[in-house]
Amino acid sequence: MAEVKLHGFWSSPFSCRVIWALKLKGIPYDYIEEDLHKKSPELLKYNPVHKKIPVLVHGGRPICESMIIVEYIEETWPHKHPFLPTDPYERAVARFWVKYVEEKGPAIWMVSQTTGDEQVKFKKESLEVLRTIDNHAAGTLGKNKFFGGDNIGILDIALGYIAHWTEVIEDVAGVKLFEAHAFPYLHAWTQNFKEVPAIKENLPDRDKMLVHFKGGRE
Amino acid sequence: MAEVKLHGFWSSPFSCRVIWALKLKGIPYDYIEEDLHKKSPELLKYNPVHKKIPVLVHGGRPICESMIIVEYIEETWPHKHPFLPTDPYERAVARFWVKYVEEKGPAIWMVSQTTGDEQVKFKKESLEVLRTIDNHAAGTLGKNKFFGGDNIGILDIALGYIAHWTEVIEDVAGVKLFEAHAFPYLHAWTQNFKEVPAIKENLPDRDKMLVHFKGGRE
Repeated sequence: MAEVKLHGFWSSPFSCRVIWALKLKGIPYDYIEEDLHKKSPELLKYNPVHKKIPVLVHGGRPICESMIIVEYIEETWPHKHPFLPTDPYERAVARFWVKYVEEKGPAIWMVSQTTGDEQVKFKKESLEVLRTIDNHAAGTLGKNKFFGGDNIGILDIALGYIAHWTEVIEDVAGVKLFEAHAFPYLHAWTQNFKEVPAIKENLPDRDKMLVHFKGGRE
Repeated sequence: MAEVKLHGFWSSPFSCRVIWALKLKGIPYDYIEEDLHKKSPELLKYNPVHKKIPVLVHGGRPICESMIIVEYIEETWPHKHPFLPTDPYERAVARFWVKYVEEKGPAIWMVSQTTGDEQVKFKKESLEVLRTIDNHAAGTLGKNKFFGGDNIGILDIALGYIAHWTEVIEDVAGVKLFEAHAFPYLHAWTQNFKEVPAIKENLPDRDKMLVHFKGGRE
């Protein structure tokens, strides 16, 4: 098998998406931790457009953007633990929601990066995003544990940061967003998601993240 | 074959992406022109999250977001005129650039919707976007006419609006963006793209767009 390398950063949910995908598929890889203040020449060479982690390098060829990497992993190793359904319509629905999370999800992170009126605006946006996803969960999960059905699928992977990072963001920002009673379906999903070994064993340490993100805010 | 319907708007490049994809694949469909100031109950029912065109309805099931629709069309009718290569790495590269266009392309449109300093900022962003895509074209096109190779592929479809709308945006904004000498590879691609019958026969009228967009600006 051609060599697989991942350039990432320990507290990034985007790095974690790729790690979860590789672990779920059982693909061995080498991990290269990047210093985001002094990115490696390899990272800059591999991702000249965005200069961002994560980058997966497979047999010397780089793939950038976390969810595109996840689809690449799916298409390269399709048999074990499929991340996408086979029906084109179901695939389009999964991709619609992945795109939604990619476009709207950053509002949640911005709550921890702002204050005053700006923070109020991002809090409002975040609550709308959680409401929209919770409504989708209400119509989808039901008898399934995951958006992917019995197993974690591509939308579960995309949503992972809501499951683990939102709590830390709340603590850093001093703002409550993800109340269990307000978003019961998404909250129940969070519990299921974090119980899966490939996820549970590959979540950054909560306390370490808190120190790191508080430092970033100050 | 299950019935195919498209809810669109005549001057929208996003609608046109779907029309081009259907025409290239030879899929018959019914077209429903939406009034964007008074959207149809069907559109609101089919796309409750974004409430936007285009929406493709296939056998009664709605698919939203233009590039997700294009991938749906590819996966539903894969044999005639494939939009994506078969190699997972090449597919990831195409998807990377589609995502880039989706995220960065709107800066070009914003040049026609702003004035003063704000317009200067969007102009600068637009030129960077065109520079980045022209660099990609320089490394990719060479002996190929299209990003998809000998035939139009998914990135060509995504980029279509640069080929036809940018000129109108320049006229509306009174700003020059897409100079042939500055972006020679992308400019040559534009000519190739607009010569393909499925594209040429399905581009909104330039003068009608000019009147429409000027009205919108005022």
